[in-house]
Formats: sequence, structure tokens, C-alpha cells
Amino acid sequence: MNKILFFIGIFVIYSQKTLIAQKNADQILNTNKKIAIAIHGGAGNFKKRNLTPEQENAYIGVLDEALTSGYNALQKGGTAVDVVELVIRKLEDSPLFNAGKGSVFSNEGKNEMDAAIMDGKTLHCGAVTNLRHVKNPISLAKAIMLDSQYVFLNGAGAEKFAKLKGIELVDTSYFFDQKRWNEMLKLRDTTKTSLDNDKGQIEEKESISKFGTVGCVILDVYGNLAAGTSTGGITNKRYNRIGDSPVIGSGTYANNKTCAISCTGHGEDFMRIVAAHQVHSYMYFSKMSLRKSAENVIIKELTQIGGRGGLIGVDRKGNITFQFNTSGMFRAGINSKGEKTLSIYK
Amino acid sequence: MNKILFFIGIFVIYSQKTLIAQKNADQILNTNKKIAIAIHGGAGNFKKRNLTPEQENAYIGVLDEALTSGYNALQKGGTAVDVVELVIRKLEDSPLFNAGKGSVFSNEGKNEMDAAIMDGKTLHCGAVTNLRHVKNPISLAKAIMLDSQYVFLNGAGAEKFAKLKGIELVDTSYFFDQKRWNEMLKLRDTTKTSLDNDKGQIEEKESISKFGTVGCVILDVYGNLAAGTSTGGITNKRYNRIGDSPVIGSGTYANNKTCAISCTGHGEDFMRIVAAHQVHSYMYFSKMSLRKSAENVIIKELTQIGGRGGLIGVDRKGNITFQFNTSGMFRAGINSKGEKTLSIYK
Repeated sequence: MNKILFFIGIFVIYSQKTLIAQKNADQILNTNKKIAIAIHGGAGNFKKRNLTPEQENAYIGVLDEALTSGYNALQKGGTAVDVVELVIRKLEDSPLFNAGKGSVFSNEGKNEMDAAIMDGKTLHCGAVTNLRHVKNPISLAKAIMLDSQYVFLNGAGAEKFAKLKGIELVDTSYFFDQKRWNEMLKLRDTTKTSLDNDKGQIEEKESISKFGTVGCVILDVYGNLAAGTSTGGITNKRYNRIGDSPVIGSGTYANNKTCAISCTGHGEDFMRIVAAHQVHSYMYFSKMSLRKSAENVIIKELTQIGGRGGLIGVDRKGNITFQFNTSGMFRAGINSKGEKTLSIYK
Repeated sequence: MNKILFFIGIFVIYSQKTLIAQKNADQILNTNKKIAIAIHGGAGNFKKRNLTPEQENAYIGVLDEALTSGYNALQKGGTAVDVVELVIRKLEDSPLFNAGKGSVFSNEGKNEMDAAIMDGKTLHCGAVTNLRHVKNPISLAKAIMLDSQYVFLNGAGAEKFAKLKGIELVDTSYFFDQKRWNEMLKLRDTTKTSLDNDKGQIEEKESISKFGTVGCVILDVYGNLAAGTSTGGITNKRYNRIGDSPVIGSGTYANNKTCAISCTGHGEDFMRIVAAHQVHSYMYFSKMSLRKSAENVIIKELTQIGGRGGLIGVDRKGNITFQFNTSGMFRAGINSKGEKTLSIYK
């Protein structure tokens, strides 16, 4: 009898807590309903003729699924940081994109993954490079941000921290993909990386798979911005190359004062112009719109130094933008007006 | 007889070439005589009572020697990039500073060195992290900038590239220093890094050696800017932590349009505010002076997020600035008016 009363008591307390939490979420949702999300799966010089209808459907399918799950989570009051992680995990788990499961191979035949996440409210951030066993690099970046005194961890040390924090580690065989392996073999023993071949248009259908850094930017119901990026880098990269994705300010940046940005493309050039922070700077100092700021950085500045790629952005009002100077960028988004984008080519 | 004529011929050709080169250098020096240089050897909460007169003299001596050698090289027409490398090599070779020879130890008892260099004229840059055998990390960063398709290389891969390019590699014993080893042992098995102990004032004389990231910024006679930074990171750092020094935009940045910047301090906070690029942004977008821009970043923005440290900067007119929110920064410089700074405390 006492036991039964005890469990009834527990149930009542639990129900009340749930009700209060629900009420708080409702109140918040009522005061600020603006949410927005944008995602990308890489930019490159690919055109409609480079993809079969089946390939197109597959890419669009994964993008739409990731977008929808993120949007639903935001509507339920998910925070920007949590939803960035959720969405990027989905893209990392897909073999279609060059991040997590689908990461490309370096010249040494290894997968070396980079990721970063940034919270626009606190300016806290976490970044990782040269991961070889972390199933979802974005989750490790988030753990570093929330649960360490560091911002940027590397390789074996980062994976040691991952183990301590219960982040899932997998055997390197998890990342093996025959197609990506063959692509690396084609370039091996040359000094070329996959992006060197991309000066013009891509010639072969299968080359589409060399693109595919993934990213997500969000405005949540609380008015907070966040950005995240995850990548396997570039096929046949050498010397433990680090790209722009994990470099805060270059590939990834978020600041509640202005915007959240995630970049994709030839990372070296994004680092040279500190691309993501430069979008913020146009907005912050020149009071320029998100779209105009992103255009200036990609269409003008990146192009001027011979760089190629794109970025996605969201501002505090829930506007989203997709800018790229390549012929394609895998992209999707829903702005604060509920307008949806789901697209591959220019 | 023929041999003698041959050697006389060679001598005449050589003399003429030397004369022409000298004439060109003179012309350049006459058209634009403005040169400026600033260097730092780390910022921290140390005061006069923390250093013996002998220690002070030793630090001042190395700073002055590095400054003078850099200034002389600039007067002879040395380029900004070359002189940044020259000066930082001198500081790396000194056991007094936490870079190169004097690098601190990580929790695993290893020296893990980072460095970056950037050319303000071309926006080309090179960066390295987690080096263990490179005698002068700044020279490897420069080789990456000038002689690879990459910007940022890491650990064993970076050292493989170093070997290919003839950059000097040394045994890890070269970096061993009993004092720095003992400092790491004192912190080991705690979660603290040396900078955690620095919230207030340092208590022990020997703690002075935990500071000492080095950096150099230059305006050369051709009107070009360059910046470089080199560091052993923070004592007892874990998980292959990467600081701000090698992160282009955060610890190091140069752009002929505005300024060249090198930072030192708690790197995580410099990454969160993308500090070096932020100084550039104040100057570029708000037409603010170098000094005011650097003050805004260090005294306002860095302080606001609880960060500590400093930076040095030079602008295209040859003004130099030293900003720090700690009680000391090892620093030296000569501006375009020939005014010299050589100082440790506030």
C-alpha cells in the first residue's frame, strides 16, 4: 500500500513538472515565434547533367529529411545549438555527403574529419580536426564547447576527450566507401587534390561525390543563433591538412548581434578572407543586410582571390541566404515566413 | 691567361649586378622610407616584484636583440614576411619564451608547438599546429604559405612536409627544459592549465616562465604588412589542444588595407571574438585608428567575455600599438617616426 502511494506521488510530481515545462515552452513560443533554418551539403561546379534523376532524388531526400527534422525540433522549442547538432548528425550519418559516414580519403588512405559549432548567444564554440574514429564529429565539437575549458582539439587527443565524455567511437571501417576510395586512388601519386580538378566543370558523373561538406545555421524560438559545419575535407589531401570548417571565423561563426554562417568550398581561400566573420563584420559595422553581406564575401571577395564555394546564413530576424560562386550547392532552408528552399543547381 | 680573363669577366658582371641591386634598393628606400616593427613575448598578470633584475635584463636583452636585428633587416630592404620570420626565429631560439626552444609541456609531457604567418599584400598565409620536432615552427608556417596549396597543416603530416622542404627537424630532447618540466608536473593530475592559475596575480617568481607566446608585426619599406605568431601553448594542456596563435583571424592576421596583428593570452577567448580580424574590421569598416581598434578588442571585447591577454599591431602608416588587459606584456617596437618601445610592465 505504501509502495503504491509512493509511486502515485512520484507520478503526480512528474506530471506537474511536465505541465510546467510545457507551459513555459508555450509562453516562449507565443512571445517569439520566429524560427529559421538553412542547411548545405557542399558547393561545387556540378550541373544538372552530372546527376542522374535517382541521384538527385537521393540528395534532395536526405536534405529534406534533415531540414524537416530540424524545423520540427525548433517548433517544439529546441535550442539553436541542439538543433544544429541534430541536423548535422543526420547529414553525417548519410553516405551521400562528405562528412561523418561519407567522408573522403586523404592521400594516406585515411578519413580525417573536421567540425565546429558556435553558439551566437554566448560566443562559446567548439572545434575538432583530424578525427579518425568519431562517428559524429559535430557532437564532439559540441561536447568541447559545453564541457571543456578548450575550443579546438585535435586528432588522438580529441578522441581521448571523446571517450571520456561518452561520445560514440567507431572502427575506421565504418567510414569505408569503395567509390570514395577509388576517387582517392585516381588522384594519389599526383599532387592534386580533388578541388584542383574543379577549376572548370566536372567531367564525370561520379565526381559529384567529392563535394559535400555539410552545415546548418539556425534561429531558434528564443531568438538565439547557432552555426555548425562538418567535413571530411578534400580527397587526396596531404600532410594532415586542416580546412576552414573547424576554424572559428572562417568556416563557422555565429553571433546573436548579426548572423550565423556555415561555409563550404576550397577552405584555404575561406581562411584567407576569414569569410564567416567577414559576413558578420559587414552586418555589424556597415548595417548591411545578411544577403548583401554574404554576396560581398562570396561573389566579390572570394571570387577576387580566385576562391570557389559558398555559404549559408541566417540573421536574427529569420532571413536566410544561400550564396555561392560555383554552379551548384546542395541546399535547403525555411525562413521565418515559412518559405521553403530545396535546391541543387544555380 | 684565358682563365684570368674569364674570372675578371665574372667579377665585372657580378659587380654590376650588385650595383644595380643596390641602386634599386636605394630608389625604393628613397620613395618610401616608412618602416615599423613591433614584437611581443607574451602577456600575463606579472608585476615588477615577480622578476629579479637579472631576469628583467635577460628578457629585455633578447627582445632588444630581436628588435634590432629586425629593424636593421628592414632598413636594408628586407620584406615584411622575411623579417617576421627572422625575428620570430630569434625568439624561438631563446629558452626564455614559450615558443620553439622554450616551449612548455603538455599534460602528456610533450612539447606541442603552433605557429602562423600572414602576408598582408597577398593575404597568403601558412599555419601549423601540434609540431614536436620542428626547430623553428615559424619557418614551416612560411614554407606552407609559399610552397604548398594548403594553409593549415597538423602534427606528423606537417612534419612530413617540413622534411620534404628541408626545414630543420630536431630530437624532442632539444626542447627539454627542467624548469618548464617541473611546472607541468605541478599541474599534472589536476584539470588546471597554467592559465587557470592566472586569474589573480602570480605568486611565485618562477611562474613568470609560463608566459611567452612570441609574435612580430611589420611594415616594410615597400609598404607591405605581415604578421607572425609562434607558441608552445599552455602548460599542462590536454587533448592536443590548439590555441589561437595558428588560427588565421584569431591569433594572427595581416591585410595591407589596414593592419598586421599578433595576439597572446588565453587563446580560447581570442578565438571566440576572432580578435585579430576584429581589429582589422574596426579599421576597415569604421575607419578607426589602429590604437582605438586594438583598444576596443582587448580592453572592451576581450575583457567583457572574461578573457585576458594582449596584442601588438602595426598599420600601413607605420603606427604601432601594444594593448593588454593583464598587468604585463613583454614587448618592444620601433614606429615609423623612429620612436622605440622596450617594456615589460604596464
